[in-house]
Parts: sequence; structure tokens; C-alpha cells
Amino acid sequence: MVNSDPLTATFAALADPTRRAILARLSSSDATVTELAKPFDISMPAISKHLKVLEQAGLIARSRDAQWRPCRLDAAPLKKIAGWVDHYRRFWEDSFDRLDEYLTELRSKERKHVRKRRKKQRRR
Amino acid sequence: MVNSDPLTATFAALADPTRRAILARLSSSDATVTELAKPFDISMPAISKHLKVLEQAGLIARSRDAQWRPCRLDAAPLKKIAGWVDHYRRFWEDSFDRLDEYLTELRSKERKHVRKRRKKQRRR
Repeated sequence: MVNSDPLTATFAALADPTRRAILARLSSSDATVTELAKPFDISMPAISKHLKVLEQAGLIARSRDAQWRPCRLDAAPLKKIAGWVDHYRRFWEDSFDRLDEYLTELRSKERKHVRKRRKKQRRR
Repeated sequence: MVNSDPLTATFAALADPTRRAILARLSSSDATVTELAKPFDISMPAISKHLKVLEQAGLIARSRDAQWRPCRLDAAPLKKIAGWVDHYRRFWEDSFDRLDEYLTELRSKERKHVRKRRKKQRRR
């Protein structure tokens, strides 16, 4: 991830379920490394490595001075991800529109079919 | 990326500027591998490798039968990314609220300062 652009660094940092779980934990409150490590069955050096990746991507901030160095979520890079993905919104919204059209068409066909059947029944 | 969960596979696929550029190109129209390779100064095998990563993440689909196998964008995984990132929206919206509060406070302080100065001028 060295020398990568910010968006690439953010996507790479998010491409790990443990790192996403750490962010989810920090979304409820700041936490120390020990607190963050607790729910995961991995070593402290492994957690520290994950935190370093998140920190380099700007997704978490750690106080340099505090003895316990609590971690804090920084959502600024996530805002950029949201902005990037928003350009593609029309693609999934379009597919919903097409489904909606299809259902309207189906309903209209069904109504026609019911009307035809009733006409036939009246003729008998 | 073998055996990774879908969200991890999508984030990993997006953690590359060339792959994101390929998706951007496909957002305007379907394209063949040759057409996709044109704007990039990289080899055909390198492009094919990128397309394979995008295909495995479900971000593009390729027709198996067609001779030219045009690639098509599939935005379903991007919708999931948008849903995931949306959980963090309050963090950047909160920070805008805080900025707004700060600006309101600044403006009110400025008004008080102006009033004080005018009073002083009148006394002279």
C-alpha cells in the first residue's frame, strides 16, 4: 500500500473483516488497543498490524501523548468512499426501475386475462 | 482473495486505480477486452488479470458464448458497499453539524464585538 492513492489505501484497508469489525466497534466509542483486541481470537501484534493499516489509511486516529493511546474512528475517508460509490447509484436504481416496470406489465396482463375469462363465463 | 467474504472481495477488487478506471469506462457502455486495454499503458495479460479479479468479485460479467466477450458492469456489489458505508454517514454529517455550530458561534461573537466597538465610538 506504499505510495498508493488515498482511495486505494482506504479500499485496501477495508478489504479485511477484522479491520471492518474494529471500525464497527469504534463507531460506538473510542477504545484502547487491549479493548479492541478482546473480541478477536488473534494476537496483540496482529491487532497492532491491523490498527497500523487503518491508521495509515486515515480511518483511525491515535493520541500520541496519552498513556493508553485510545483509538478514535475518523470517517473522512469513508465519506470519500460514499462519494465514489454514489456515481454508480443509477445502475442499481435503474435495475429496480426495470423490475417495477416488469411488475406493472405483469399486473396489466393479469387484469386483461381476468377480464377475458369473465367475458367467456358470461357468454356461457 | 480465495474464500474471502463478498464484501472483502469487493473492497479488494476496488483497491486498485486501474480496476476502478475499468469500471468507470464500463459505466458508459459495455466494452471488449481490447477496448478496455486501449487507454492503459499495460499489457493484455495484465488487463486480463484485472478483469478476472473484477469478475470474481461480481463487479463485471462476461458473455461466455459471444466471440468478442464484451464486459458489462454489474453494480450489485457496489450497492452493498454503499449500504455498508452508509452506517458511518452520521460521523461525517455530525462533523458538518459541529462546523455549523462553530460558525454560528463565531458569527455571534463577531456581532457582539461590532456592537461593543460601536458603543465605544459613540462615547468618544
